[in-house]
Amino acid sequence: MDSLGRSTVLLKRMGIDTHEEPIVYMRADCDVCRSEGFSAHSRVMITTERASIIATLNVVRDGFVLPTEAGLSEAAWQLLDAESGQLAFLSHPRPVESVGAVRAKIFGHAFRDDDLLQILQDMGAGRYTDIELSAFLTACAAAGMNLDEVVGLTRSMVQVGQRLTWDHRIVADKHCVGGLPGNRTTPIVVSILAAAGVCIPKTSSRAITSPAGTADTMETLTKVDLDLTAMRRVVEREGGCIVWGGAIQLSPVDDLLIRVERALDIDSDAQLVASVLSKKVAAGSTHVVIDIPVGPTAKVRTPEAAHVLARLLQRVGQDVGLVVRPIVTDGSQPIGRGIGPALEARDVIAVTRGDRDAPSDLKERSILLAGELLELAGTCGAGRGPVEARAVLADGRAWRKLQAICEAQGGMRTPPTSTQQFEVTAPARGSVTGLDSRRLARAAKLAGAPADPAAGIDLHVRVGQSVENGQPLFTLHAQSPGELAYAREYLALHADIIVIGPSS
Amino acid sequence: MDSLGRSTVLLKRMGIDTHEEPIVYMRADCDVCRSEGFSAHSRVMITTERASIIATLNVVRDGFVLPTEAGLSEAAWQLLDAESGQLAFLSHPRPVESVGAVRAKIFGHAFRDDDLLQILQDMGAGRYTDIELSAFLTACAAAGMNLDEVVGLTRSMVQVGQRLTWDHRIVADKHCVGGLPGNRTTPIVVSILAAAGVCIPKTSSRAITSPAGTADTMETLTKVDLDLTAMRRVVEREGGCIVWGGAIQLSPVDDLLIRVERALDIDSDAQLVASVLSKKVAAGSTHVVIDIPVGPTAKVRTPEAAHVLARLLQRVGQDVGLVVRPIVTDGSQPIGRGIGPALEARDVIAVTRGDRDAPSDLKERSILLAGELLELAGTCGAGRGPVEARAVLADGRAWRKLQAICEAQGGMRTPPTSTQQFEVTAPARGSVTGLDSRRLARAAKLAGAPADPAAGIDLHVRVGQSVENGQPLFTLHAQSPGELAYAREYLALHADIIVIGPSS
Repeated sequence: MDSLGRSTVLLKRMGIDTHEEPIVYMRADCDVCRSEGFSAHSRVMITTERASIIATLNVVRDGFVLPTEAGLSEAAWQLLDAESGQLAFLSHPRPVESVGAVRAKIFGHAFRDDDLLQILQDMGAGRYTDIELSAFLTACAAAGMNLDEVVGLTRSMVQVGQRLTWDHRIVADKHCVGGLPGNRTTPIVVSILAAAGVCIPKTSSRAITSPAGTADTMETLTKVDLDLTAMRRVVEREGGCIVWGGAIQLSPVDDLLIRVERALDIDSDAQLVASVLSKKVAAGSTHVVIDIPVGPTAKVRTPEAAHVLARLLQRVGQDVGLVVRPIVTDGSQPIGRGIGPALEARDVIAVTRGDRDAPSDLKERSILLAGELLELAGTCGAGRGPVEARAVLADGRAWRKLQAICEAQGGMRTPPTSTQQFEVTAPARGSVTGLDSRRLARAAKLAGAPADPAAGIDLHVRVGQSVENGQPLFTLHAQSPGELAYAREYLALHADIIVIGPSS
Repeated sequence: MDSLGRSTVLLKRMGIDTHEEPIVYMRADCDVCRSEGFSAHSRVMITTERASIIATLNVVRDGFVLPTEAGLSEAAWQLLDAESGQLAFLSHPRPVESVGAVRAKIFGHAFRDDDLLQILQDMGAGRYTDIELSAFLTACAAAGMNLDEVVGLTRSMVQVGQRLTWDHRIVADKHCVGGLPGNRTTPIVVSILAAAGVCIPKTSSRAITSPAGTADTMETLTKVDLDLTAMRRVVEREGGCIVWGGAIQLSPVDDLLIRVERALDIDSDAQLVASVLSKKVAAGSTHVVIDIPVGPTAKVRTPEAAHVLARLLQRVGQDVGLVVRPIVTDGSQPIGRGIGPALEARDVIAVTRGDRDAPSDLKERSILLAGELLELAGTCGAGRGPVEARAVLADGRAWRKLQAICEAQGGMRTPPTSTQQFEVTAPARGSVTGLDSRRLARAAKLAGAPADPAAGIDLHVRVGQSVENGQPLFTLHAQSPGELAYAREYLALHADIIVIGPSS
């Protein structure tokens, strides 16, 4: 105990990665556990001179820590910004009051604005357990969220994180409501917009469940983990950038919520809208085009669902000061040929450079989105956007801009190529009637993407195409024989990943 | 990898108590993590020759485990019934299908019976994460549960655990819907019923959040962790017992759910009814009296809420084959004088032995409940129960029965007494207008109860009683000066734990 009678311990870094969960490791026979009545799974408040966090107790036998020590998981260590041997004191955390508003929501009461801000602040400070995060998301999904609540949630998410500002009246942005492998339009759209003189400081994410995020793909071309100062320098010089948003901490609570939503496999429109729009507001954007691919294996399955989502994006956007244009697109099959960071980067380069054999679907999708964004930004009149975008791409301006952005971000690189390949061929003559995007993505991940940037899948056919018996359908790419075998095993179990019907 | 290409590891017991959460500890650079693509917080299926469990991955640096090893938390080790150095293989768990029914519930669809059975079986097998357990409870509370669902939940809880059978047509039981310190009627009621010839094989719980559970109190008088065979022997010989239910695994999933409910501080009537009645059905009971104390700091706050709960208990009881009689009682202040295992045991003995100074509230409450149960069991006519119960208590039969039960369970003990005491006195003359049950319970816990059985609080006054300035209000009991100081500190912050108003 210290002079104030508080229970003190010395902090020890355990080197245990529990993902985002702060865990404290102590011995059952330590003074603090006995005097405070802590036992396994107790919530413990840990306070140093600098910070204060709440962690969950795991009780360890001797050998791990001394009775005078408290070991911390990596997440706890970082949240607390701790030092080895640093003094800390432990106590029972006060009940997190905002959980009361979650309970009220469970029992049918709508959130007030200040409830949501308090909840998000507490989440941001690490005061919510997984159990409480899950209750929040479940209650929101079960009881539904009215428009005011979605706006309140979006605003609160912005308030809890960093917020960027730019010296431009119009700051363009784009987003895709996920679920479509290879849909890597962002680098192309950014290159076109920046080349056309529109400010577009794009932050992108790494893959969460997919074989590649835009940040993963861009990382095969240049450095993406820029801090805010470096990002500003690139944007000032080139009018645009494509960096990893994770380094900048926009709307950090969103990452917590996404992890739990993913675990539950529930995602409501309300959470999606708040998540997307809060990141746009925090990034300082003013005009945003949102790509909503619709297809049986995409995130949004029906045109009706896409319409409802589009309306909500626009209405909430209006309330938080964003001009939002949702674009509903075909999400029935992957876009481009590559699935995986380097293979997708290769497609991006081919389209931007204007290669003759560049995948035309990726090119047309990029022109569509860039065109809408040019119109939205007021660079050209209604209906002129696609023409303008196509011109910027055709005359080499976009390609020069992409190279310049990559140079400014730290130098342009050549994407790596894989050491192991395996070709999957058509078992019969016929016509391709279906491509299962989800399973293709799964196979690409089993082959090593995105951790091995060269790993993934290279598609050689598209829906509607005729194939001969033995014609290559796609090629698996991997960096080790083990991973190649692993992905092949998966393919053997799912022969219908590409469906070949009778010749049309 | 083994000959089937499966990823194998050697199991190691880590000695880390994570409460009920199965955790597996592996190095980031181990073959399995790389080939299977596992990262921190991945769900990992671990299979041995004997069993298969799902655990959450924590990634550790070297020093904890070898790259060929997988360390297990205590919960994982026990679920898997593992041995040191045992071979196991690791894989990605299949998605838990019953979570789909939880998602459907979130979005407004009622559970079907087979959904609930599947959910409870998966929970029992450790396949649900905390996030999923929380979503289940939140969805049930937010969407509500209809009568069929509550009955389905109760039946499923019974099916997942052990179920006892007895050679008696009528098997009596009692239960108290918690929240009232010192309300230790169970040993007295069991003694009266068994002495009156009614079979009453009582299983009780240890404290979860309170300073003493019935099992903790009884443990100061005799052995309570009997296995099923030993329990049967006691019941055959004496017609009743008071043992710890935890050793017998009745409705084990309920413990998982209670932990999460407690963390969220939500408890719906549906969960409470299913929890209580499933344990009664599993224990083989046929006739049950349920004590529902109502008071501002009790679990049930209003007579209306008690009425709704009582109706639900009866209706669900009917559907699962139980005769249930709910009794709404006064829950405005603690019952008896002692709060804490040994102090409560002392009160139990005083009442059962018929001591002149035995606490009359505990005696009358026990006679009320025992009387109702005697009537319910058909031992006496309507309205005759209390008279009969009082007679069994008055003529020493109940006391002889309690002693006989204790002897049969392993020998009767004398409850321990504390080494440290501190007396709290009235700061002024007046009348006791309120006792805060929750804070008294908290102080008793800070003093060491129930871990130190002799620790707790001994109350000297009751609501309505006149006191002089300096008159003892209650005595704190502890086993160490530190714990006594800790409880005193809490009392100093909450001087209004006993409210003294002007003399009446």
